[in-house]
Amino acid sequence: MRPIHVGLLGIGVVGSGTFNVLKRNQDDICGRAGRGIEIVMVAARDIARARGIVGEQVEVVNDPWQVVDDPRIDVVVEVIGGCTLAKELVLRAIANGKHVVTANKALLAEHGMEIFAAARARSVVVAFEGAVAVSIPIIKALREGLSGNRIEWVAGIINGTTNFILSGMRDKGLPFDAVLKEAQRLGYAEADPAFDIEGVDAAHKATLLASVAFGIPVQFDKAHVEGITRLEAVDIAIAERLGYRIKLLGIAKRTADGIELRVHPALVPARCLIANVEGSMNAVMVKSDAAGVTMYYGAGAGSEQTASAVIADLIDITRLATAEHEHRVPYLAFQPQAMVQTPVLPIADVRTSYYLRIAVRDTPGVMADITRLLAAHDVSIDALQQQAPAGREQTDIIVLTHETVERAMDAALAGIAALPTVLGPITKLRVEQLA
Amino acid sequence: MRPIHVGLLGIGVVGSGTFNVLKRNQDDICGRAGRGIEIVMVAARDIARARGIVGEQVEVVNDPWQVVDDPRIDVVVEVIGGCTLAKELVLRAIANGKHVVTANKALLAEHGMEIFAAARARSVVVAFEGAVAVSIPIIKALREGLSGNRIEWVAGIINGTTNFILSGMRDKGLPFDAVLKEAQRLGYAEADPAFDIEGVDAAHKATLLASVAFGIPVQFDKAHVEGITRLEAVDIAIAERLGYRIKLLGIAKRTADGIELRVHPALVPARCLIANVEGSMNAVMVKSDAAGVTMYYGAGAGSEQTASAVIADLIDITRLATAEHEHRVPYLAFQPQAMVQTPVLPIADVRTSYYLRIAVRDTPGVMADITRLLAAHDVSIDALQQQAPAGREQTDIIVLTHETVERAMDAALAGIAALPTVLGPITKLRVEQLA
Repeated sequence: MRPIHVGLLGIGVVGSGTFNVLKRNQDDICGRAGRGIEIVMVAARDIARARGIVGEQVEVVNDPWQVVDDPRIDVVVEVIGGCTLAKELVLRAIANGKHVVTANKALLAEHGMEIFAAARARSVVVAFEGAVAVSIPIIKALREGLSGNRIEWVAGIINGTTNFILSGMRDKGLPFDAVLKEAQRLGYAEADPAFDIEGVDAAHKATLLASVAFGIPVQFDKAHVEGITRLEAVDIAIAERLGYRIKLLGIAKRTADGIELRVHPALVPARCLIANVEGSMNAVMVKSDAAGVTMYYGAGAGSEQTASAVIADLIDITRLATAEHEHRVPYLAFQPQAMVQTPVLPIADVRTSYYLRIAVRDTPGVMADITRLLAAHDVSIDALQQQAPAGREQTDIIVLTHETVERAMDAALAGIAALPTVLGPITKLRVEQLA
Repeated sequence: MRPIHVGLLGIGVVGSGTFNVLKRNQDDICGRAGRGIEIVMVAARDIARARGIVGEQVEVVNDPWQVVDDPRIDVVVEVIGGCTLAKELVLRAIANGKHVVTANKALLAEHGMEIFAAARARSVVVAFEGAVAVSIPIIKALREGLSGNRIEWVAGIINGTTNFILSGMRDKGLPFDAVLKEAQRLGYAEADPAFDIEGVDAAHKATLLASVAFGIPVQFDKAHVEGITRLEAVDIAIAERLGYRIKLLGIAKRTADGIELRVHPALVPARCLIANVEGSMNAVMVKSDAAGVTMYYGAGAGSEQTASAVIADLIDITRLATAEHEHRVPYLAFQPQAMVQTPVLPIADVRTSYYLRIAVRDTPGVMADITRLLAAHDVSIDALQQQAPAGREQTDIIVLTHETVERAMDAALAGIAALPTVLGPITKLRVEQLA
């Protein structure tokens, strides 16, 4: 049987990794897939550079449209990134009856439904393992490994840059800006790190996880997104003393009222395995009704790490090419007619517990005022402590609450912020027990 | 399309879990698989008890042969355990053209090649996710998620009973026997715990992991198997002070000379995530060339936890039923013609590092004798320390070595044991850095 012919759009970090791993492991891959998988055409901006990577055997073109239109190509691998040209190329590849593999989380989180609908109409596969947790086959685990389960929640460290920064802030007690600079110097953060540190990248990934876990449409615009830029080293240190680590989590959770879809820094119990995931590593915890808690861990970035996912998708496509369309694994885990429209909840409706740091003038009655306002909004206190020794003029009060709805928490905080004894803004962080 | 018809052999812990989860999640499962999956027939020793679980809608029979011979059945789920009757039933189901799902690690580790060959001849699937790490989809991860990689090694905590005992010995400083009794009382160990504590169960699982990782035949008889029955609390405590935890590991490793396939207690760096897997939980680390280190964590036992794996296999079969045979996922990850005969190494040829505890009479020259004998066999020392304060008559010498071949280590130890200053047997444990 002739090998599957792959056309590669882009030969940057992921594209070159994919080419190199496919070539290096071609015997093993053919031994698993039962058929060779061969990159036959590459679209690259810099032809000479591309030629240096792929050699003379592979056709290198400047024009990506040539790849998606070439009748010899069975599968298009899109690794150019961005949402404009990438989207048009992917849709044209689909229209031409080609399967698509992409690691482009932004593209799928923002335009996934349009792309999957087009693919369904043309009976082609769109696979995207590399778009979420890179080296970790989490899409496969959710979509196939846990397919007998009702998923309750997914919570993951799904952005390596921010985890690297948070690990650094904790280890060295340094402020955010200093660690970000170090991360940029070491190549763990981009020159323009906004997508990572503002939580957008993690939210793209959480959006895809939510879809695959619950069978809801991809809807990035409903995600609540907070990054780590305002996180202070003092809260990391206090959390540590209280037995917690602060991690940027992507959370997708099924509740009676709807789906929670949120990315924000959160306190996680230090004894939890995921609290100990350090540096640029990723990990995703899944709670499901039959399997219980399972966790998946691995590198969250890297050329060959992403290639690992891209090639797994290529091998799946090689196999599924002969299955009837309705028997393939559905793009988003559920058959189109089984997708549900469970609403994504606004953040005000989310239920979780909280860590508060409130700077106060240390006068009699301040504790009483705070606890009274919390009680008035039905926020129940788990622990309350004063940071500085009594007697100082100013002190921080730390509150850990039981689970409450965010709307009530915010209402209580508005009251507390208005107290004459409260100085400056209140720090509010969510606490996730992940049990 | 009519639902897939499943016949269940056995309705004990796993069988009843499978029935319950399939029923509870039938909408989600149908929504994922695109087709219903229905248990239509159950073979049980105690019909009344089985009827109490499955109700009136399902046919319950005493005779398991009726299930494997029934023309209405598409897939047989074997969860009776054991290797005799189970093997005959599985082979007959295959001969009758039925797909098989089994969680029976002993059956596959000992008779896998015969069973897979029969299945191949009849173009049916034999799936066994539940046979290795129960709730963790590790077979899928290795066979499909990491299919683009060359696997270097797999190391796992793949027996919940022994991990529960080791966690208890460490937490409470209690001896093996006391913790085993506690585990039996709590249901974490069987009345006859030999299979678990002697490492046989973990070796069955490691044998299957080795096949799927490296494309070698299933060959349990080549596995090196050591359990935890001789492990002493003192070594757990010393390991802890040295920055290690002791875990029962199943290891499958590719080397230039062959495959290492071994189960034994091992010291693992405490900072390693897998060292922090406690109680009856399981975890499997995989090192592969492109993805790097990934890890998979979850419950290692349980009724619905195993059901999760069995049902994932059923859904895969439901999908693959329409794929051409040569395009299905191969039983052991590699196509039959791509399987290799890389030899499994005898334990004497295994390379690793070691922890030694040597009880000696505390006389001048004893350290010199020990280091001289280690050097004579090219065993390089990483750390050497005396346990008791000098001046006592008897003391323990603790040695950590660099990597060496087991044959050399054993030769050195034979010499050391013969020293007149050495008292009693030497404790030798392997150290795995898992880096």
